[in-house]
Amino acid sequence: MDQRFNKKRQVYFDNASTTPLDKRVFRAMLPYFTDDFANPSNLYETGRCARQAIENASAQIAAALHCRPDEFVFTGSATEADNLALAGAARAHKFDGKNRGRIIISALEHKGIMSVCAALEKEGFEVVKIPVGKNGMVNPEDVKKNLNQETIIVSITMADSETGTLQPIKEVSKIIEEYRSRKEEAGRMEENANRHLSSSSSLLPPRSLPLFHTDASQAAAYADVNVEKLGVDLMTLSAHKLRGPKGVGGLFVKRGVKLQPIIYGGGQQGKLRSGTENVPAIVGFGKAIELNEAYKKAGSIKVKKLRDALQIGILKSVKKIVLNGHPTKRLPNFLNISILDIEGESLLLELDEQGIMINTGSACNSESLEPSYVLTALGNPYEFVHGSIRFTLGAETTKSDVDYVLRCLPKIVARLRSISPLNLSLDERKAVSDPRAFIGNKTPHFLRKKLKIRN
Amino acid sequence: MDQRFNKKRQVYFDNASTTPLDKRVFRAMLPYFTDDFANPSNLYETGRCARQAIENASAQIAAALHCRPDEFVFTGSATEADNLALAGAARAHKFDGKNRGRIIISALEHKGIMSVCAALEKEGFEVVKIPVGKNGMVNPEDVKKNLNQETIIVSITMADSETGTLQPIKEVSKIIEEYRSRKEEAGRMEENANRHLSSSSSLLPPRSLPLFHTDASQAAAYADVNVEKLGVDLMTLSAHKLRGPKGVGGLFVKRGVKLQPIIYGGGQQGKLRSGTENVPAIVGFGKAIELNEAYKKAGSIKVKKLRDALQIGILKSVKKIVLNGHPTKRLPNFLNISILDIEGESLLLELDEQGIMINTGSACNSESLEPSYVLTALGNPYEFVHGSIRFTLGAETTKSDVDYVLRCLPKIVARLRSISPLNLSLDERKAVSDPRAFIGNKTPHFLRKKLKIRN
Repeated sequence: MDQRFNKKRQVYFDNASTTPLDKRVFRAMLPYFTDDFANPSNLYETGRCARQAIENASAQIAAALHCRPDEFVFTGSATEADNLALAGAARAHKFDGKNRGRIIISALEHKGIMSVCAALEKEGFEVVKIPVGKNGMVNPEDVKKNLNQETIIVSITMADSETGTLQPIKEVSKIIEEYRSRKEEAGRMEENANRHLSSSSSLLPPRSLPLFHTDASQAAAYADVNVEKLGVDLMTLSAHKLRGPKGVGGLFVKRGVKLQPIIYGGGQQGKLRSGTENVPAIVGFGKAIELNEAYKKAGSIKVKKLRDALQIGILKSVKKIVLNGHPTKRLPNFLNISILDIEGESLLLELDEQGIMINTGSACNSESLEPSYVLTALGNPYEFVHGSIRFTLGAETTKSDVDYVLRCLPKIVARLRSISPLNLSLDERKAVSDPRAFIGNKTPHFLRKKLKIRN
Repeated sequence: MDQRFNKKRQVYFDNASTTPLDKRVFRAMLPYFTDDFANPSNLYETGRCARQAIENASAQIAAALHCRPDEFVFTGSATEADNLALAGAARAHKFDGKNRGRIIISALEHKGIMSVCAALEKEGFEVVKIPVGKNGMVNPEDVKKNLNQETIIVSITMADSETGTLQPIKEVSKIIEEYRSRKEEAGRMEENANRHLSSSSSLLPPRSLPLFHTDASQAAAYADVNVEKLGVDLMTLSAHKLRGPKGVGGLFVKRGVKLQPIIYGGGQQGKLRSGTENVPAIVGFGKAIELNEAYKKAGSIKVKKLRDALQIGILKSVKKIVLNGHPTKRLPNFLNISILDIEGESLLLELDEQGIMINTGSACNSESLEPSYVLTALGNPYEFVHGSIRFTLGAETTKSDVDYVLRCLPKIVARLRSISPLNLSLDERKAVSDPRAFIGNKTPHFLRKKLKIRN
């Protein structure tokens, strides 16, 4: 970074985009770069050491997920894990040998899911997108309504990357489990009815379907990722969202779940993801998740307190703000707001001038300046979406960082509004996301209590 | 590594499996782990810095390849790049909207190519495997004979991972170029003939086909990777075979070449490979290839001298040895030999006891103990393949390392042979790979000269 930059105070509020690599994680990775560099597929001692390092990382991840070490596949990114889950399940379970079958996703999925589903749709699969309410939540009943005999997989993000709204994963998994049980029952009945036939070929799809996948990349830092409790068959994780390294993600694949690989080759990672394993990154992933599990409880309380302070501070000092996502059921480090009458990108650049790093929508969308499909899915009008910014806190965020934002933001907003051609009139009752709570400093007492706003 | 291990002399002769990370490369990567950790998709300054770092790496690679920086796609591994090239080309160019079309590969391709081709065959594509001669080389005429109107892609490794035999890439690219020119000509003639028709829909496939891909992962450290001179449309590279980091590979994709992605998402890497870019690894890849280009000429001379010394030394001191691959046209750091009457794996473990790391077949195959398909493709009998070992030298190999191997190897071979139930009788004239040169110390003078054996 250049000289000028070093002098500037840097305040990082973009942990949903990527987190700083934890120094303890980096120390754990270090030996595997220049010293213990062997290929883990090799039979000699240093090769076996590298293999052991991967197995240790698998064990660390298994401990966090409450799964078996061999139920986790390391990939090159969470996007790849999402692709492996969706395309892998669809292609492995297509009906009648044709690319036929239903895939159910929410309207808030990560681009990895959205884009692979668009590709699978072209291959012949049917993709059903479940809408979300204005609060950003999927209604489990909507999943239930859309399940059919041809449904191969349901994928609902644990928390989306833009608002951090937590989805009812356990409720959805319960619905899917009930559906599978009914299929199991129907299958048994059909078998009984057909006992007199020589071949008992059932036309019903495998009773293990639909599979249930959740992308927990964004949520894992603060939400529970116990796959037993969640009841998922597949779960995506990302190391660099957990203070681990970039270039490594992974997929929990429940025992017995059949996937078709998307990358073929030497057969590494249980034949599900070929290619020489990225040993230092995998070691870092294991360490990062171990540290994160130890940090999660206290960390959640800490970032929530700071996030709430930031939220209240902004509400107090800036008018015409709408909260995006669920007022309470969201990740403790997320604050996504639309600041009306200004553009999110202008604000991003102005804040950057002050050394404050935030985002507009998800990082993957930042290159394109199109309005966020996630925020649009919440039913927000274009003008709201356009002025949206996202603060995501992390383990290194301090009270002083929050105070610094609260000093800078109102001035910048005032200046940008003074030169804006927009001046939206806002009908409080029609606005989204419980606007009563989020328009200026008019928050009513009962909501302040509900939102645990204390001051 | 444990205490005992630290005391042991370590001699690494497995650079084809993976290379040690160059300390200068590691230093270049360092800032991007814990300090400049931002997501390169972000608009703020640190994000733009990360983007710039990726662009610098692209420029370093473009300089080595003589291509444009935007003609190189970073992937998570060379295996992924191979998959992207083959599956990407096949799926993007399938005929009549069906999975139809021919893929031509050699019998010596890396598992990444072999396995993705097996998958593509299941999807409906036709895969034609070109045999190789006993010297490990593809005959360009065999490629020519197999080209047809439906051929989408030809993929010939630049040098295989087991014997390092260099393939006639330029000759093959010339044949493909001629074939495309003839198609171009035929297309123009057909268009002229059909000028009177309202719709000039040609039934001929696109004239840009077949595409030509080479996997240069193994070759790039010592062979020329100038894509203009080579005449390739697609070329796979691996960073960790060039003293760069693991977890990053890439694909040269000539401008205008259409591929279907295998990983969908945020649209990074020109929409060909989505997922947050692994900034430190990409920076390391750029630095590694830059250093390698500077080192290549002198490095080739150095490793060849040491490799020849090793080869001659082994020939002098151990009998019943067969060279695998081409006697001269192979990478200067490769020595693959079959030591008859013993098992390669036993030898590997015995050498490992002495701190000498070698391989049997390619690393990707080491986990399975099946005989190498590459060596089998050379027409070697099972017993030869079983006793094969591969020494691959690198920038850090010294004369002292070679001497150490020459001190240890004969004793180990003698001991293993003394307990071996095998005692193959070897007809010198029928044995493979110019056995006259490689059976014990009987090398005739004219071959010694040809092989530049001097002492």
